[in-house]
Amino acid sequence: MGISPDAAASAGQLSAELLGAMAYGELSAFGRLSLDSRYAPTLHDRSVFAKIAVGAYGNFALLNDRLSEMGVDPEQAMLPFQRSFDHFHERTKPGDWFESVMKAYVIDTVSSDFYRAVSMFLDPTTRHFVERVASPDQATEVLRVLIRRALADDPRLASRLALWGRRLVGEALTQAQRVGMEHPLLGPLLKGGGDARAAVRSLTTELADKHGRRMTGLGLTA
Amino acid sequence: MGISPDAAASAGQLSAELLGAMAYGELSAFGRLSLDSRYAPTLHDRSVFAKIAVGAYGNFALLNDRLSEMGVDPEQAMLPFQRSFDHFHERTKPGDWFESVMKAYVIDTVSSDFYRAVSMFLDPTTRHFVERVASPDQATEVLRVLIRRALADDPRLASRLALWGRRLVGEALTQAQRVGMEHPLLGPLLKGGGDARAAVRSLTTELADKHGRRMTGLGLTA
Repeated sequence: MGISPDAAASAGQLSAELLGAMAYGELSAFGRLSLDSRYAPTLHDRSVFAKIAVGAYGNFALLNDRLSEMGVDPEQAMLPFQRSFDHFHERTKPGDWFESVMKAYVIDTVSSDFYRAVSMFLDPTTRHFVERVASPDQATEVLRVLIRRALADDPRLASRLALWGRRLVGEALTQAQRVGMEHPLLGPLLKGGGDARAAVRSLTTELADKHGRRMTGLGLTA
Repeated sequence: MGISPDAAASAGQLSAELLGAMAYGELSAFGRLSLDSRYAPTLHDRSVFAKIAVGAYGNFALLNDRLSEMGVDPEQAMLPFQRSFDHFHERTKPGDWFESVMKAYVIDTVSSDFYRAVSMFLDPTTRHFVERVASPDQATEVLRVLIRRALADDPRLASRLALWGRRLVGEALTQAQRVGMEHPLLGPLLKGGGDARAAVRSLTTELADKHGRRMTGLGLTA
């Protein structure tokens, strides 16, 4: 049984949508991480954050090249996602260094979970590509160490960062839902078809659970 | 005739001073370029600027590693230069995309000329290292192309960008002079010893001349 040309075209479009969302996500993460590095208490911490921003740019470059290889204009693929990502960043401006580190960690982990979950419904080549780009990496570990260090230095931070983590994940999941709703190809394909709203809701629960376990691992109340 | 231990120590300190200045210069360029990329008229231009910022981070990482190899704490080497670089950026905030591009180009070229001129008085290993880090590269060419394109699209930009270029180079040279004055090892060694003020003044003239020729090459009145 072959794949119909329509289904293949639609799968290709879906891949382009996901990669476009990821590409804009990484480009905007680059800008935000660079901006937030100004809060770093030392030049060393500032350079650590700069390195994480450079990693986000590296991911962006990979996604950009992949879109071009697929014959898709990266700018056109990114544009539909600009508004919701920018909106998210506007609503979650960190107030200090600790909030910046927590934000970087939550975005890194929750968005990776989201992209990998969606990639399950794509062709194997795209899926492997997404898994490679959206895997926990050295930056994830560096951020976790920075949070642990901050909590060890000042245990009173725990309640503030727990609250901030809840707000971040709430905003992130609202954004993921919006992305799922606004982009009709993404929604129905989640969970192998069916009702888009139900599929997106089920994914949201999964992402929130994973986030909760990470927060508990850090000694924070998710 | 051997080199006295004192002279060798002082030459090592001078290298550490120059590399520390360069390292902070690249780290702060990274932050500024990232911030200014928000003015980009398209996502493509924004990613081009992000790539240039990533290049500045790459130079910072090379300098950081080199300082560590020399047994110098990079943070300690950078700190004395933080105030004057930050002051420069505070005084030269671009008002739009074109001013951002021009600022990136002027800083890239003038600071490379400055570092390479100072490196002439250092040991061959450090000199070659500085020449490699501070050479005109792909980013320099990309910035030149962006300026040419902007001027071709809107010739009325020429007078505004010429004025802005003059202000930038004026502030940059004032900063270079201050760095020469505040750091007693740098000053006297320029031009092989002699009066620090005269040496710094002579270097300033050289840097301004080179800048002027680049502006003329772009069709701007330096």
